[in-house]
Amino acid sequence: MTHIEITYLINSLHSKELIDAIRVEQTIEYPFELAPTWIQEQIVGKVVSQKEFDKTRTEVTISYNSEITGFEIGQMLNVIWGNVSLFRDVKITKINFPDSFLTKFKGPRFGIEGLRNSFKAKKRPILATALKPMGLTSSELAKMAAIMVKAGIDFIKDDHSLANQKWAVWNERVKIISDAVSEANAKFNRNSVYAPSMNRPAEQILDAALKAKGLGCGAVLVLPGISGFDTMRAIADSDDFALPIMSHPANLGSYIMNPNHGFNHEIIFSTFKRISGADMSIFPNFAGRFSFSKEECLTIANSCRDKLANLKTIMPTVGGGMTLDRINEIVDFYGNDTVLLIGGALHRGDLLENASRFREIIEQFEN
Amino acid sequence: MTHIEITYLINSLHSKELIDAIRVEQTIEYPFELAPTWIQEQIVGKVVSQKEFDKTRTEVTISYNSEITGFEIGQMLNVIWGNVSLFRDVKITKINFPDSFLTKFKGPRFGIEGLRNSFKAKKRPILATALKPMGLTSSELAKMAAIMVKAGIDFIKDDHSLANQKWAVWNERVKIISDAVSEANAKFNRNSVYAPSMNRPAEQILDAALKAKGLGCGAVLVLPGISGFDTMRAIADSDDFALPIMSHPANLGSYIMNPNHGFNHEIIFSTFKRISGADMSIFPNFAGRFSFSKEECLTIANSCRDKLANLKTIMPTVGGGMTLDRINEIVDFYGNDTVLLIGGALHRGDLLENASRFREIIEQFEN
Repeated sequence: MTHIEITYLINSLHSKELIDAIRVEQTIEYPFELAPTWIQEQIVGKVVSQKEFDKTRTEVTISYNSEITGFEIGQMLNVIWGNVSLFRDVKITKINFPDSFLTKFKGPRFGIEGLRNSFKAKKRPILATALKPMGLTSSELAKMAAIMVKAGIDFIKDDHSLANQKWAVWNERVKIISDAVSEANAKFNRNSVYAPSMNRPAEQILDAALKAKGLGCGAVLVLPGISGFDTMRAIADSDDFALPIMSHPANLGSYIMNPNHGFNHEIIFSTFKRISGADMSIFPNFAGRFSFSKEECLTIANSCRDKLANLKTIMPTVGGGMTLDRINEIVDFYGNDTVLLIGGALHRGDLLENASRFREIIEQFEN
Repeated sequence: MTHIEITYLINSLHSKELIDAIRVEQTIEYPFELAPTWIQEQIVGKVVSQKEFDKTRTEVTISYNSEITGFEIGQMLNVIWGNVSLFRDVKITKINFPDSFLTKFKGPRFGIEGLRNSFKAKKRPILATALKPMGLTSSELAKMAAIMVKAGIDFIKDDHSLANQKWAVWNERVKIISDAVSEANAKFNRNSVYAPSMNRPAEQILDAALKAKGLGCGAVLVLPGISGFDTMRAIADSDDFALPIMSHPANLGSYIMNPNHGFNHEIIFSTFKRISGADMSIFPNFAGRFSFSKEECLTIANSCRDKLANLKTIMPTVGGGMTLDRINEIVDFYGNDTVLLIGGALHRGDLLENASRFREIIEQFEN
């Protein structure tokens, strides 16, 4: 029997009651004293350590038999945060998964090494951009994509807001942009990939991923906060699909924006994404228009590249209000094993010029 | 062109900048001044009203062209909360969907009227319970289910923690319990339904719902916070499936537990669930072991039963630490169009006796 250890920071005067509630609630959800002895002993969570910082702040680590997850992502999330999400003032600051749990998951198919091979980028950061704004036609977006290929952007994704709107419906858009990227790759001797957004209806999403591949897309963008972490895992696990996955943070702010509730950033943006098969995890850079601190960003990036049983390391993907004149500072901060995602800022002035400059700056890091 | 109006409560000294950021971020995510004029005018969100309560609290309503959702649940969630979830101190307190948007969705297939017909319950509340605890075998859970049928519990669901654990694997469990419920229905002249938990892997969930139906299950339990709201919609929309759906709040606490971030309770537990096809929405009762206030609970219940374009009204389903001696008070508070979900408390003492007493108390409300 191996165990998952979850550390909770509890901000409450009633930490004792809360701790008892959590270990029962997240397992048997049943009066403890009525459960058979073996269930009390082997299934209900057990406190393994506890530290009282002051009257209202207690840190507690509870261990759970990993069998209660059934070794599936959905039940893993349910054990970790299902009903406890409805308790006030409980924050999960750390999770230790045993290797015997993690080895049940394939995780990222490509990871840092696989991405470096496919982009023929030995040392430098990977360049990424987004096709936007919503409202442009598929052909307009395709022209934009061709410029990005010419400039040498490695990874060209749909803006995360592009779903199936009438201005550029999914089927048409993915074909037209994918064709434009292939053509431009041949013409300019590049190997850029186009990643359509997989914000598709649940019953179509796996087929849509295969369709994207069939149309020549080299990767996809998945929004696990909307489609579900396990949907991302299903796409990653598909041997018929077998392309890199970039994951987007949409809707995931709910889990990490509150100091006394939810999760530490790296659990959502690195650990869960990695177990669920993302090769790249987008998160907003500090000092952009979002609210992550420098430390939170670095913790995510480090966690993406830390050892985690058999799971490949993945590329932290930094985006959100980034500009060309900050690239050196950003690479210096995150290191080379990073994807730099610059969207809107490339459009101020001449797009080809800006995108080419982006590549030029990044090329320096190859040597 | 019709619009979705979203009201945000902003707790910040920088509300002006935040409001501009939100209306651009949730649409074009691109420098406003660089977008074509028609996109600025027709796609970017527009402030329709604004109220400053004090220096740090501003309420603003922004209207969005409903076409930007593509009339799909995934992109609806993305427009409403995608990137703004990563902003601090923004809470969504109200959403007005135009009828032209809502009529694109089928919503709940059964709703209150359909549930009343299938349970042959004209006026009384519906009785529900959960099979638990995790760790019991399928046969033990099936025996428990048969007792519930005998007592006259309408709706018998898997505990939400039952997924595919070795003690009662999904395929086996669903068959054994479903058989036991059918047998008991015949024997005791009841029409109880068994609802297995659909916490299944993403690529199997739709097939699993059909399998459950094939095995004789009369409904299912879906966890939209884990499987995704659109997955619930896909199950509800399937004409081959066509059974009632009870939705569980697991993981949804992230969206509603923080006074300055997320959503008002009824948006998540009523509006989103209803658009996504739930016939019953479980939420924790006030004064139980969770943290919802009396007012929050009532707002959810009322919203489940309010007019919402063409979408059927649904049954608020109250659970969490409820006991038999509180039923009269609870029905008095919520009204008869309610599902009462009592789990653990039925097991203190004799199960058949308690469950029969539960039915007996509820029967009074039929007349």
